[in-house]
Amino acid sequence: MRNGAPPSLLLATENQGKLREMRQILGDLPLRLVGPAELGIHLDVVEDGATFEKNAALKARAYAEAAGLPALADDSGLEVDALDGRPGVLSARYAGEGAGDADKRRKLLAEMEAAPESKRSARFRCVVALAWGGHVYTTEGTVEGEIAREERGSGGFGYDPIFYLPSLGRTMAELAPEEKNTMSHRGQAARAMRILLLGLLADQ
Amino acid sequence: MRNGAPPSLLLATENQGKLREMRQILGDLPLRLVGPAELGIHLDVVEDGATFEKNAALKARAYAEAAGLPALADDSGLEVDALDGRPGVLSARYAGEGAGDADKRRKLLAEMEAAPESKRSARFRCVVALAWGGHVYTTEGTVEGEIAREERGSGGFGYDPIFYLPSLGRTMAELAPEEKNTMSHRGQAARAMRILLLGLLADQ
Repeated sequence: MRNGAPPSLLLATENQGKLREMRQILGDLPLRLVGPAELGIHLDVVEDGATFEKNAALKARAYAEAAGLPALADDSGLEVDALDGRPGVLSARYAGEGAGDADKRRKLLAEMEAAPESKRSARFRCVVALAWGGHVYTTEGTVEGEIAREERGSGGFGYDPIFYLPSLGRTMAELAPEEKNTMSHRGQAARAMRILLLGLLADQ
Repeated sequence: MRNGAPPSLLLATENQGKLREMRQILGDLPLRLVGPAELGIHLDVVEDGATFEKNAALKARAYAEAAGLPALADDSGLEVDALDGRPGVLSARYAGEGAGDADKRRKLLAEMEAAPESKRSARFRCVVALAWGGHVYTTEGTVEGEIAREERGSGGFGYDPIFYLPSLGRTMAELAPEEKNTMSHRGQAARAMRILLLGLLADQ
């Protein structure tokens, strides 16, 4: 590692919960972690990519260019096998732009009524993308589960109450926050990115 | 880095071309790279995962367990947007188990006749998975392009002759081997994994 100030890395999200989680996971690296607000940057990136990888890379690249700094962004969602991977990149706006989480879950459960009884497998996926020195690196994390037949649990958000984890016998919304963070798709992807960042720092 | 022999890493593929490419990309790392044949290992891993990530992880994990060593595996294929991401994980056997590359391309071109004229976007994706110390890390690489209306070029293999790169004005099969290696999805994923391995070695 060179002497002097550590290099800066822009955490390209305006979601305070995500910022906190990223700072926790990446906090031990010799990097100065900054958020968009600290730089006075606000971007409306159109996330129209067909994949999580593409959307995460779009965001990381846009923020890196705006800030002139390496930038890290993520995209995530739920892939349901019986629905050919939907809602996928549309997870956040599956029931329309203004609709709430409960609407999205209702829509998904209704669609699952037409699916074969035995095919309820699904996964939460998160891709973290890093724009660094002209390249974009991505890591990902997944949690395998099944779409429950009805909602259970009051923790988490989004699709958590209908995402059942057979190995734990609970839905994602029935996990304690620490439990969820340890095994979450976002935590996994971020921890893999921490390792990749270590490698980039070692490679300089 | 500790003294003594460098740690071993099993490159979990029996494809000699892939082995050579991996050795090139990872060759400067303080790792002893070994192939399955050197260890007398041959596994028939059933690649029935719904995603590239899952199949690559399945292989990496199976080889790591059989060898008692960290192992690296990959899975890749072609995702066509107008076909909801098909052939995807089925890319290698899209026209049936025994069918050749020409059959697969013919089947895909025939399916595209029903697709909207304007929607020919597609991407080659490769995921490299590393089973290391109880975790599986994945990196990925993608090349964006379009499904051509007819075959062009005699290089490469698989879907290369019908995968058109608008930025280069050529199909993947019209690129020189070095050109293809530099920008290929597998090369990108492997180079990101090299960085991640550097990080793991630095983190020990």
